[in-house]
Amino acid sequence: MNKEYAPPEWAFEFHGHRCPFMPIGYRMGKLAMKSLGVEHEKDHGLFVFPEIGEGHPQTCMMDGMQIATGATYGKLLMAKTFYGKLAATFYHPQKGAVRYSLKPEFIDAMGKFEFFGYRKKGIEPSQIPEKIADEVIGWIDSQPDDFIFKVEPKPDFRFTPAKGSFNKAKCSQCGEYVFERYVRTKDGQPTCIPCSGYGK
Amino acid sequence: MNKEYAPPEWAFEFHGHRCPFMPIGYRMGKLAMKSLGVEHEKDHGLFVFPEIGEGHPQTCMMDGMQIATGATYGKLLMAKTFYGKLAATFYHPQKGAVRYSLKPEFIDAMGKFEFFGYRKKGIEPSQIPEKIADEVIGWIDSQPDDFIFKVEPKPDFRFTPAKGSFNKAKCSQCGEYVFERYVRTKDGQPTCIPCSGYGK
Repeated sequence: MNKEYAPPEWAFEFHGHRCPFMPIGYRMGKLAMKSLGVEHEKDHGLFVFPEIGEGHPQTCMMDGMQIATGATYGKLLMAKTFYGKLAATFYHPQKGAVRYSLKPEFIDAMGKFEFFGYRKKGIEPSQIPEKIADEVIGWIDSQPDDFIFKVEPKPDFRFTPAKGSFNKAKCSQCGEYVFERYVRTKDGQPTCIPCSGYGK
Repeated sequence: MNKEYAPPEWAFEFHGHRCPFMPIGYRMGKLAMKSLGVEHEKDHGLFVFPEIGEGHPQTCMMDGMQIATGATYGKLLMAKTFYGKLAATFYHPQKGAVRYSLKPEFIDAMGKFEFFGYRKKGIEPSQIPEKIADEVIGWIDSQPDDFIFKVEPKPDFRFTPAKGSFNKAKCSQCGEYVFERYVRTKDGQPTCIPCSGYGK
């Protein structure tokens, strides 16, 4: 594998454990950035929509994508689609969009490694012997990009983020600040969602 | 400020720019961990629910929380509540829950720094002179925890993550794998959500 597609050491510190998926997401992110012609996102220009959901494994890919691209959850640049698929669309308004997914043949071949036997027994990644994790990570590193990833340009993809506002109000009940989009009204007073009891 | 509440250098690399909110989220995360008696989460034991939404500023706090706690978006340990508030609840099933929020007086005092004048003019954080960013970051560092944060134990807080399954099926249309929870049925065949046209 091209060295530029290997995560820096701090990426494992951020993520918390050694698993194959954070590095796969990192490599996917780096390849997508190259494909779009974008750099690590400093501010708010690049969006990533992983087709990940909940209640399934292999979601760690998203941490690798955050690390590689700079399109982080904290900057509101990453949002899951809840499709339960190992894929993501990378979108930059000036550069277009590309979708990367893991090929089924790759997923099948990878699934034979001992790491997944441990996971299926419910053993947490940090408790799996490092050599078992490194075995599958090393195997993946040695596979060519086109065995792992399907790549699809998405020329029609569009996304418009919510219009931002700095306006805020104090909740009449708890006294905490609420940004305006989320201010609700109760008994004629500005109220935050939890104090309003409206649920959303 | 206690040095242990200052983010490591790689945290700024991950986040992409120097702003006051990533470090505030980091400090909030570290304090909450101490309050709960938990370490940086290696696997899947600690959950963070930021009361952040979309279309408002200061969301960068969430990146600091991910970095401090290890409760990352990729590990499905962080989920926004969409309340538009600068607060978060930290929850560990064996240790309980605590909510941290930014005090309104702190938010008002911080808002007078020049950094926010730049942001309100639409200037992206990476384009704001470093000394302007460091001025507000330095001021925050010098404030005591109890001027910045309101802390509330939440003894009744509960959260149960979606039950996980490794089962998956190939979509009859696109041939890609879908985890079972997200498999839909169309013309009697297993189908992924995008191919089904059902939308969710």
